[in-house]
Amino acid sequence: MLIDGKNYQSIWLNENDKSKVMVIDQRRLPFFFEIKELCSVEDVYNAIRDMTVRGAPLIGAAGAFGIYLATLEITHRTNVSSHISNAAEYLVSCRPTAINLSWAINHSLRRLSGITDPEMLSDRAMNTALEICETEKDNCRRIGEHGLPLIREISEKKGGKPVNILTHCNAGWLACIDYGTVTAPVYLALEKGIPVHVWVDETRPLNQGARLTAWEFGKQGVPHTLIVDNAGGHLMQKGMVDLVFAGCDRATRKGDIANKIGTYLKAIAAFDNNVPFYSLMPSTSIDFSLYDGLKEIVVEERDQEEVTSVTGYADGVIKSVRICPVDTMAGNWGFDITPARLVTGLITEKGICRADEESIKKLFSEKFK
Amino acid sequence: MLIDGKNYQSIWLNENDKSKVMVIDQRRLPFFFEIKELCSVEDVYNAIRDMTVRGAPLIGAAGAFGIYLATLEITHRTNVSSHISNAAEYLVSCRPTAINLSWAINHSLRRLSGITDPEMLSDRAMNTALEICETEKDNCRRIGEHGLPLIREISEKKGGKPVNILTHCNAGWLACIDYGTVTAPVYLALEKGIPVHVWVDETRPLNQGARLTAWEFGKQGVPHTLIVDNAGGHLMQKGMVDLVFAGCDRATRKGDIANKIGTYLKAIAAFDNNVPFYSLMPSTSIDFSLYDGLKEIVVEERDQEEVTSVTGYADGVIKSVRICPVDTMAGNWGFDITPARLVTGLITEKGICRADEESIKKLFSEKFK
Repeated sequence: MLIDGKNYQSIWLNENDKSKVMVIDQRRLPFFFEIKELCSVEDVYNAIRDMTVRGAPLIGAAGAFGIYLATLEITHRTNVSSHISNAAEYLVSCRPTAINLSWAINHSLRRLSGITDPEMLSDRAMNTALEICETEKDNCRRIGEHGLPLIREISEKKGGKPVNILTHCNAGWLACIDYGTVTAPVYLALEKGIPVHVWVDETRPLNQGARLTAWEFGKQGVPHTLIVDNAGGHLMQKGMVDLVFAGCDRATRKGDIANKIGTYLKAIAAFDNNVPFYSLMPSTSIDFSLYDGLKEIVVEERDQEEVTSVTGYADGVIKSVRICPVDTMAGNWGFDITPARLVTGLITEKGICRADEESIKKLFSEKFK
Repeated sequence: MLIDGKNYQSIWLNENDKSKVMVIDQRRLPFFFEIKELCSVEDVYNAIRDMTVRGAPLIGAAGAFGIYLATLEITHRTNVSSHISNAAEYLVSCRPTAINLSWAINHSLRRLSGITDPEMLSDRAMNTALEICETEKDNCRRIGEHGLPLIREISEKKGGKPVNILTHCNAGWLACIDYGTVTAPVYLALEKGIPVHVWVDETRPLNQGARLTAWEFGKQGVPHTLIVDNAGGHLMQKGMVDLVFAGCDRATRKGDIANKIGTYLKAIAAFDNNVPFYSLMPSTSIDFSLYDGLKEIVVEERDQEEVTSVTGYADGVIKSVRICPVDTMAGNWGFDITPARLVTGLITEKGICRADEESIKKLFSEKFK
């Protein structure tokens, strides 16, 4: 997508030196736009670990590029197979619960199996990483195409008045490789000249909405308004929200949605006000082995400092301020579960389906065998 | 209530010099505990205006003290009646929509009417302000007594395990004169040895939960945990909330509740999870002229900078950091309306009633004549 008129992905190979993987440092956004070079497996590990890169599809792609960088470290004295498998193990260990990361790395390993020539290994690893990027981009584009008619329909009903979409957190192109999931239909609507306006939830504690989604929309010229996480219910009561579009960390086969903490509160407010609530995701985010999200998905607890302080910009630097007494203890849960009964539908690269096992089965019959 | 072992109210007269009204500077809490002297009508005006003092009952009391300070400014050349009425007009103008402020000031004027002797005027004005404080304290104490049995009952059902209460914003003693509304039953439970634990919503944008409620509870020794506003739904889904206690800016005669933005989201989550949701208030907060809160109460929009930045503590000073791109526009609504159907009950100084017109009428029959 565009940054000041120039097209970017969230991860790419340096054009002039293909041994360098380039990423946008997302910890510094929106205050500083900085590109980082990842030149080693360790660089990739650290970038994922310290959240220079974040978002499930991007983390997966970064992992695959990590395997590629591992192949560049092969010398004539390297035991190739143990070198690669050590790199894989190391990379997976930096976010062991990130499904896309382990999937992308294992996929790369499978693609490399049996190859011993270092140059062939590198070529294959590079192409695998690039293919993963293309697949993710393609998925997002399709999610956009499937979501667009929902926006168009409301736009027509409203006689061309802007369609108000509320979103939580960042499920934009920064989290993916390009287009994003939640943002893809919005960008497509903009392209087609359908007026849209997005309410951007701040998304405490880490403020990915205020920091990243607002930045993305600003750069693409999408009309948007930042709101605190508390405001969405009021807006829905007042008829100021036509659609809720949320991302998805993990969905179950009956359509329960694990997503950033606070998503459930928006879903239930949407339900109470007859506002359609959709979750947008590549089908890789559906875990067909899971049924009841509330019972089966463990919600991770994170560092309490994310709650007791807020990071922003002041005096030319990025700064954290403490927002509570020095001895206050905080609880910090990373996501919550929105039960399928509150979800109007899932928008995937394969199409839209209702949030129930039967409808999901129809769209993904091969996964139910 | 206690601050480091010493008893305080949120407003009081200087013991040694009764021409000085003392308040805690709430803008500086919890980072600095500073007491400010208000020595003139203008001091009171500024303290209300800049939110040195906030909270409906406290603002009302401050207004009454402002009239008292006006009486101290009377000289032999003063036109007493126009001096007092000018002061009243000036004070009301600093928060024209604050019902308690205009009520307290008009009440003071009525009590002063017909008196011309400056000393008698001052005595009467001082006593009126002190009486208002006593009435507010008494109301809060009674709210505590009426709310306590709800906590006790759950405690008994849980076999003495801590009762988990979730609260939003600050409806504590800082907002009132003492005890608070939401906090009064909690402090009473603590006094009676009933184990409680409070989930304190951060309450963006101004973080009164993180700044003030957490500070209050820390000073009184109430077990509590700070959470982001997004977390409450998850906690309710997991059975980690036994009761929601919210304050009330204004209630209608059928029990709709206007309260700090985000209250509605907690009410609807409580409803979805069968968690009782109570709103606690002195009966002066019930506007018997209103019926349908969603239709009749205008929700004020506030400065967008409250959303685009967060104030906290860093490097020994209070600091604001911007949390979004520099050109991001924000929307900022001060409160929302929780419809009566989501409210289990109102806890007032007169007792508890269900949130419907008939039940409210039973408790406040004199208001329905």
